[in-house]
Amino acid sequence: MTDTPRQRRPRAPVPLRAGYKQLRHPFAPQAAFSGDEIAAMHDTALRVLENLGIRILLDEARSIFRAAGALVDDDSQMVRIGRDLVAEALSAAPRSIRLRAADPAHEQIFEPGAALFMAGSGCPNVTDALRGRRPGSRESFVETLRLQQSFDVIHMHGPSAEPQDVPIHLRHYTLMQEQLTNCTKPLFVYSRGRGQVAQSFEMIRLAHNLDDAAFQDGVWATTVINSNSPRQLDIPMARGIIDFARAGQLSLITPFCLAGAMAPVTVAGALVLQHAEALAGITLAQLARAGAPVAYGGFSSNVDMKSGSPAFGTPEHIRANLGSGQLARFIGLPWRSATGSASNAADAQGAAETVNALWAAMLAQATVTVHAAGWLEGGLSFGYEKFILDVEALQTLAELCRPAAADAAALAYDAIAEVAPGGHFFAAHHTMERYQTAFYAPLVADLSNHGLWTENGALRADQRATAIWQRTLAEFTPPPACKDAGARLAPYVAAQIAAGGMLPED
Amino acid sequence: MTDTPRQRRPRAPVPLRAGYKQLRHPFAPQAAFSGDEIAAMHDTALRVLENLGIRILLDEARSIFRAAGALVDDDSQMVRIGRDLVAEALSAAPRSIRLRAADPAHEQIFEPGAALFMAGSGCPNVTDALRGRRPGSRESFVETLRLQQSFDVIHMHGPSAEPQDVPIHLRHYTLMQEQLTNCTKPLFVYSRGRGQVAQSFEMIRLAHNLDDAAFQDGVWATTVINSNSPRQLDIPMARGIIDFARAGQLSLITPFCLAGAMAPVTVAGALVLQHAEALAGITLAQLARAGAPVAYGGFSSNVDMKSGSPAFGTPEHIRANLGSGQLARFIGLPWRSATGSASNAADAQGAAETVNALWAAMLAQATVTVHAAGWLEGGLSFGYEKFILDVEALQTLAELCRPAAADAAALAYDAIAEVAPGGHFFAAHHTMERYQTAFYAPLVADLSNHGLWTENGALRADQRATAIWQRTLAEFTPPPACKDAGARLAPYVAAQIAAGGMLPED
Repeated sequence: MTDTPRQRRPRAPVPLRAGYKQLRHPFAPQAAFSGDEIAAMHDTALRVLENLGIRILLDEARSIFRAAGALVDDDSQMVRIGRDLVAEALSAAPRSIRLRAADPAHEQIFEPGAALFMAGSGCPNVTDALRGRRPGSRESFVETLRLQQSFDVIHMHGPSAEPQDVPIHLRHYTLMQEQLTNCTKPLFVYSRGRGQVAQSFEMIRLAHNLDDAAFQDGVWATTVINSNSPRQLDIPMARGIIDFARAGQLSLITPFCLAGAMAPVTVAGALVLQHAEALAGITLAQLARAGAPVAYGGFSSNVDMKSGSPAFGTPEHIRANLGSGQLARFIGLPWRSATGSASNAADAQGAAETVNALWAAMLAQATVTVHAAGWLEGGLSFGYEKFILDVEALQTLAELCRPAAADAAALAYDAIAEVAPGGHFFAAHHTMERYQTAFYAPLVADLSNHGLWTENGALRADQRATAIWQRTLAEFTPPPACKDAGARLAPYVAAQIAAGGMLPED
Repeated sequence: MTDTPRQRRPRAPVPLRAGYKQLRHPFAPQAAFSGDEIAAMHDTALRVLENLGIRILLDEARSIFRAAGALVDDDSQMVRIGRDLVAEALSAAPRSIRLRAADPAHEQIFEPGAALFMAGSGCPNVTDALRGRRPGSRESFVETLRLQQSFDVIHMHGPSAEPQDVPIHLRHYTLMQEQLTNCTKPLFVYSRGRGQVAQSFEMIRLAHNLDDAAFQDGVWATTVINSNSPRQLDIPMARGIIDFARAGQLSLITPFCLAGAMAPVTVAGALVLQHAEALAGITLAQLARAGAPVAYGGFSSNVDMKSGSPAFGTPEHIRANLGSGQLARFIGLPWRSATGSASNAADAQGAAETVNALWAAMLAQATVTVHAAGWLEGGLSFGYEKFILDVEALQTLAELCRPAAADAAALAYDAIAEVAPGGHFFAAHHTMERYQTAFYAPLVADLSNHGLWTENGALRADQRATAIWQRTLAEFTPPPACKDAGARLAPYVAAQIAAGGMLPED
């Protein structure tokens, strides 16, 4: 017998770029609530908006609502929004959105049925086994961007680690420069005030040589809008909704409703609050510009009753994910979910939390699942090892987005006939023709037996992950589509820094 | 503010016996293959049985098949089974089976729609952080039985760890004595020959004071039948099918079809082989006694092409699980699935493998999922820490089997009205009424922040699990329903040992 699968083969390089692009959901959406219950949640959310209202701190946003017929009280800053306004907004919002990318192979159609993943985002700290836990820096931001770029199963860039060593009036230049010179997937822009957003958009136009029409032909920039639950929208968030809408760029309008803390203690109640706040944001976007690209956002979970911390991958988080998917389908919009982990380590708890939440997002047919790789400590740190482990989980699910072969050859009657009872299929023709590509090739999982595993140092998965991110970063070269971006951006950034930068907006 | 959830409360004891009994599946079953493809698999499996046949090493089993009209060749031991025989068997097999238990609260209805879990089973070794990896012994068998008994989410007992320090001609006495004196859930009996099976049944009758009629009123003993894939059924397995059928006890008829090793390299082909072998076993059971309780068994996965080891939680394993569920529904029988882990440690790999496979089994609506807690190294070791971690995963899914409240009070309009914009719900009446029972209370997950977690020793989840299994074993007391079993069994076992015991059958 020659060259059978049992023989040891040379160790393969990290299997990057496996082709997990433009995925479609493989599962039928699942329900956590009945159709009547979802309709009641929607109706209750509308009653919240009509009768109780939402506090909106930005004058311009209240003026937009007033002009459209909402009941606005400027003293209390409360805005009460009728269900007719919400209905008009929902019918104006697009169902299908083209996400542009420096590399056309990384473009995405953002619509119900599509399955996109974004890495862990917004983390003030980073953690890896070699350098420990430390505040995010420009260096770690670049590294974590390069990790995102290196795996096809990450579809949109997120602001993984906050570059805290860059002053806040200059930080948006760093966030955009590093994305534009290292990355070729759809980009992220923070909503930190009109000035920073405008300059970030300008940097995208410069880097990719886009005029205004080209910049608005599809979406080049995505932002996340978090309301200040309960029932409040602050100035930079309201401004972001308006500015992204007017520029034709995408807002993921995502209340962060932790049941028992910023939201009612019941999952159903948290979803009602989430829904009301998301509808208010979607309505503002459509009033700012009808047809503006927006996504419904659901990020409800429970708070840990012992510590007050957010919990992920719990039964309540899974239910909230499924219910959010039902609410998104009820209003017909693409939607953003999230996985996540509260664990402080890239351990079994962290894996179970992320994988549970990931299955929930898949079964809820989330259009994009944020924080899908690398989120530790409920988002307080981006874990390099955690990122690698989570990429394995994402690739496992991404494999399921391709149908399995089940034609006559795959049913293997002839192979079964060929192999004697009690024999084996290692050397069967059917096996030899297929074994090199038959199965998913693990990134970090080690399936060797206990003896060999012990000989090789008895490393846990998180310990093996260290070598994988190191190798990935060592092998990274900026993609060709980024080649000229640095030179195009440098004079602009230098001039802006010389002019004093741009502070974020409170 | 007094007594809010943020305040530290005294550490609760391990939340055992949380009431996860008699679960029903919460999700709609999912498909990995089209209906036509499943029908083609079934038809191809029937062609395998009709044209190629299966080798059956037990003379008595071949005689049963010959008497029923199958084509039997005693020289080659090959049996070819017509589709009419299979169809008759499938119509004779019961759809709903009552599993009896020493404690009536642990009885189960084993039928499509029910969701039962069994711990990791059949492990020659055990592993824990205090004593390391070692061969299974009577002591570790007892400990792992007590762990199974202590958590309600484990529904049927499995032979967790093999008591290798007990000679094989006496081992079945140990396996039964320890189950019958420590456990009150449905019992497991190995099919290791006619003599051992008969004596094991006799011990159940003695311990529970059952006459023959009472023993056959529902199922008191469950066994797992593994064919020697491909297309072979050995003597103890064939004998087990016959003996369990005639005694009205349950066989989980489970080919272990590893794609690329003992089965075709395609998932579809592995399922065809699995289906053919399972149908052969089910047919033998029904020929031995029409109406015998049997379950369809699916345990197909892929082999790791680097090491030749079985893989779990992989895309191929997930697909095989979903496809097995489709095949089980196609023939209308309750069915047994399995999760599992190839990892050598209770680490992030192990967690992801088990949790992925668990979701697959849930979405495939497995009636019982075997190896659901504690399986390491593809079954070569039972991990104490792994068991605790997996119980958390099982409890998380079990919570989802209860519907979430979504009545008007749960929708929380009044609570939302009560809390001011930007405020919090910690002290809301709605929260105070519910917070103690609103959320699943983690068994091992630690959601404290990084500072507190570090102060507490920066323990990984597997390290925290050590204290939990220790505490669980320390607090264990044999349940009241076991009280008299030991005294009833002792004279019988002493007499059998004096008579030389009973060797297993090859």
